[in-house]
Amino acid sequence: MMPRFFDPALGASGGLDEDEARHALKVLRLGTGSEIELCDGRGGLARAVLADAQANFSVLQSEQHPRITPGLTVAMAPTKQMDRVEWAVEKLAEMGVDRFVPLLTTRTERGAVRTDRLERIALSALKQSRSLFLMEIAPLTPLNAVLEQFSKTQILLAHCAEAPKTPLSDVPLSTDTVLLIGPEGDFTPEEIALALDRQATGINLGPRRLRTETAALYGSAVLLGSRR
Amino acid sequence: MMPRFFDPALGASGGLDEDEARHALKVLRLGTGSEIELCDGRGGLARAVLADAQANFSVLQSEQHPRITPGLTVAMAPTKQMDRVEWAVEKLAEMGVDRFVPLLTTRTERGAVRTDRLERIALSALKQSRSLFLMEIAPLTPLNAVLEQFSKTQILLAHCAEAPKTPLSDVPLSTDTVLLIGPEGDFTPEEIALALDRQATGINLGPRRLRTETAALYGSAVLLGSRR
Repeated sequence: MMPRFFDPALGASGGLDEDEARHALKVLRLGTGSEIELCDGRGGLARAVLADAQANFSVLQSEQHPRITPGLTVAMAPTKQMDRVEWAVEKLAEMGVDRFVPLLTTRTERGAVRTDRLERIALSALKQSRSLFLMEIAPLTPLNAVLEQFSKTQILLAHCAEAPKTPLSDVPLSTDTVLLIGPEGDFTPEEIALALDRQATGINLGPRRLRTETAALYGSAVLLGSRR
Repeated sequence: MMPRFFDPALGASGGLDEDEARHALKVLRLGTGSEIELCDGRGGLARAVLADAQANFSVLQSEQHPRITPGLTVAMAPTKQMDRVEWAVEKLAEMGVDRFVPLLTTRTERGAVRTDRLERIALSALKQSRSLFLMEIAPLTPLNAVLEQFSKTQILLAHCAEAPKTPLSDVPLSTDTVLLIGPEGDFTPEEIALALDRQATGINLGPRRLRTETAALYGSAVLLGSRR
């Protein structure tokens, strides 16, 4: 399998960034004339050749792949333990979620998120899964702003309150979708009322009480597995 | 919500084990006369009352819940990094997988697994999810023994070789099922041939290359989400 590198600015020629160059030259011991693959994380894939010992390259051939649709955005309240968020981001990116939004709610346990760390994890998952699309990491965003931003999208609200809900398996991913996952302790009644008022669909993730990150993974897998 | 404790030998009376007693007495500060719930991890659920300050109890009322069927067993090759196995076990238990089998294959990267640690994680997930069924942890088992042991069960083989495969979403969990997940580097061609010869169904987890533990989580979630 040809070694693949990430270059967000994929053009006819260019140079690998510092991390990628080190990996190419020191770890894989590639040199002038070695063939590589380049992807831009937005569906672009190119075959290129290293032009010198500084990991500059010339593109030989390139192609543009279409994004798999419909798309899935996961907006999840970050947990107190950041490793749980990071693990979820890795898994969601591997599985093919398009965008991750750290969700600020009344009961969200952390008021700041290192999105640069999450971006590195998403990039690593892109390479691991040999996907062509980099999962986008949004900044920490309040619930009402998410509802506003995705007002034209199908919004699914996973919550634990007593209310009529749709089983997740009855909501296939047949249109662009945002899955909202609340914090430990759930969304507040006011937040649930607000989301439902903005046309969100209350969904049921089954009879078990799932941790925040487990709910995000389970819900995303079921939706992606039903994509048609 | 009434505090719930685990007692595998659930009878008319008894005593909480050391860890559970410490949690009841020191953390929750329960005492003689406090009402508790007890579950045995096999569907038994009881209401009981603490009879003394040593966390002995008398059962007031008990009921037996039926297991959700069909059941799902996940047999996964343990990864080199044990934290990835432990994380997968936690998530699989929360989601409602019935049994986890560490799978010994030609390319499995570890020849021993601390099943006592995995059992503790499964127990913790049982409490977290307020499920009534404890995920069973099997010992490290060679592939051919798993194929033998589950010869009467639907066996799904997730592998990466070029071969006709069934998309996972076309294999609903309509009968007891074993999902086989191979190591980094996949099952060997001989192992794939052996499993298919024993009536395993080759399945396709989608276009992305998933890490071992991600494949186990994704496959389990899609199957559990389709259970009918």
